[in-house]
Amino acid sequence: MTSKTTYRHTVQVSEIDFSLRATIVSMIGCILDIAGVDADEKGFGIKKLGSENRSWVISRMALHFYRLPYKYETFDISTWVSDYGKLLTTRNFTATDENGNSTFAAVTQWAMIDLSTRRPLDLRYVDEYNRHLCIEQTPINNPIKIAAINPQKTIIHKVSYSDIDFNRHVNSLRYFMLMIDMLPVEFMANTNPIHIEVNFLHESQYGDTLTAGYEQCGAKSLFEIKNNSDTVICRASIEWKADMTWKN
Amino acid sequence: MTSKTTYRHTVQVSEIDFSLRATIVSMIGCILDIAGVDADEKGFGIKKLGSENRSWVISRMALHFYRLPYKYETFDISTWVSDYGKLLTTRNFTATDENGNSTFAAVTQWAMIDLSTRRPLDLRYVDEYNRHLCIEQTPINNPIKIAAINPQKTIIHKVSYSDIDFNRHVNSLRYFMLMIDMLPVEFMANTNPIHIEVNFLHESQYGDTLTAGYEQCGAKSLFEIKNNSDTVICRASIEWKADMTWKN
Repeated sequence: MTSKTTYRHTVQVSEIDFSLRATIVSMIGCILDIAGVDADEKGFGIKKLGSENRSWVISRMALHFYRLPYKYETFDISTWVSDYGKLLTTRNFTATDENGNSTFAAVTQWAMIDLSTRRPLDLRYVDEYNRHLCIEQTPINNPIKIAAINPQKTIIHKVSYSDIDFNRHVNSLRYFMLMIDMLPVEFMANTNPIHIEVNFLHESQYGDTLTAGYEQCGAKSLFEIKNNSDTVICRASIEWKADMTWKN
Repeated sequence: MTSKTTYRHTVQVSEIDFSLRATIVSMIGCILDIAGVDADEKGFGIKKLGSENRSWVISRMALHFYRLPYKYETFDISTWVSDYGKLLTTRNFTATDENGNSTFAAVTQWAMIDLSTRRPLDLRYVDEYNRHLCIEQTPINNPIKIAAINPQKTIIHKVSYSDIDFNRHVNSLRYFMLMIDMLPVEFMANTNPIHIEVNFLHESQYGDTLTAGYEQCGAKSLFEIKNNSDTVICRASIEWKADMTWKN
């Protein structure tokens, strides 16, 4: 058993957009970075797993924004692993500003894979895990399964060198850039994201041709990315504070 | 007068590629980040300039790699401003590994602009500057002017939300991603970059359609990015340790 661990982050100029607030992508990047740092510090991160030919892959994420942090704003992110089963473990995050108000909260689910087979391993046999659990409830509901969409707009993207990580697989943040770049840019200026759900379903690799689809349903933007074999790679939804109309 | 300032950096997993070495783009990002942090610490960074409607823009860069740093490797980057004239100031960088060996060195030239007019300001009237000069010679030759190229390959890229910074202009690192993504991926696995030159000639904005061209001349990869008005935005060259043949 352990307690939550808290990391401090200051929003850098490279993390903001023209609204002078942190971008959605930079805040997801911040969450994923802290997941990595915290797992490393506790002895079950990719520093250790890499030498054993194992790694973490993210499966689902739910992210609730109370507001987007501003340029140069400092906030504290607390993170804890609340449970694990055979296939998935749950890592939670809460971010609090200097006045003690919530900025965002997230629940992420991860699998551990064998890097040779890319198949999941049974988490019940990872010894380091048990003593690092913090039995405290998740700050928001667990991530949900996202249904297929009917795209109003699609774009094609060939996976390039800059999209891939050390393992030749597409970096998770790249899917988000692809999705958000389909939105009318006024979305970023005129409204606020409230709630994001993501399902990471398959990996894509260097050379794949991805088709990203986007559908606007009232206040929700829905996304789906498929590879050239029509396999769904990723689905996501972003709920905004106001209904936004899709314009080509 | 002042001395050099040294910052420590550890190569993160997000900064490496499948060769398990830092990418060219991540090292350029590291140099630009440190330029920003050091200028802020000395009182002439964009934290101060932003409130005065001024900002820095990079004009040219020369970057020499002795080798690319590896995953989790820690190195020290020293930086100093060696001179300034009416239009441009020179900021230098040297990176040294834990054994005291050089990993890379860079010379960058910057202009200060008025954010309303996007025109350069006269640096001779920036008071903070004089006392922060470190009269030590540049670690490599100054950046050079790069000639027009005859592209063997071109790609089209529409500037999207993820490409732009807080000022709605394309982030400098995005030009590099666009250029490096045109190279055969084997370049990254089979050879090493030795010397990079960059000329930033014009800014590009959200909605622009960019055409990036690439020409391989022996051991040198040459690049040129133009906007839809045929204005040259950026030129760059990367010299590799071995001659590499361009294949479509």
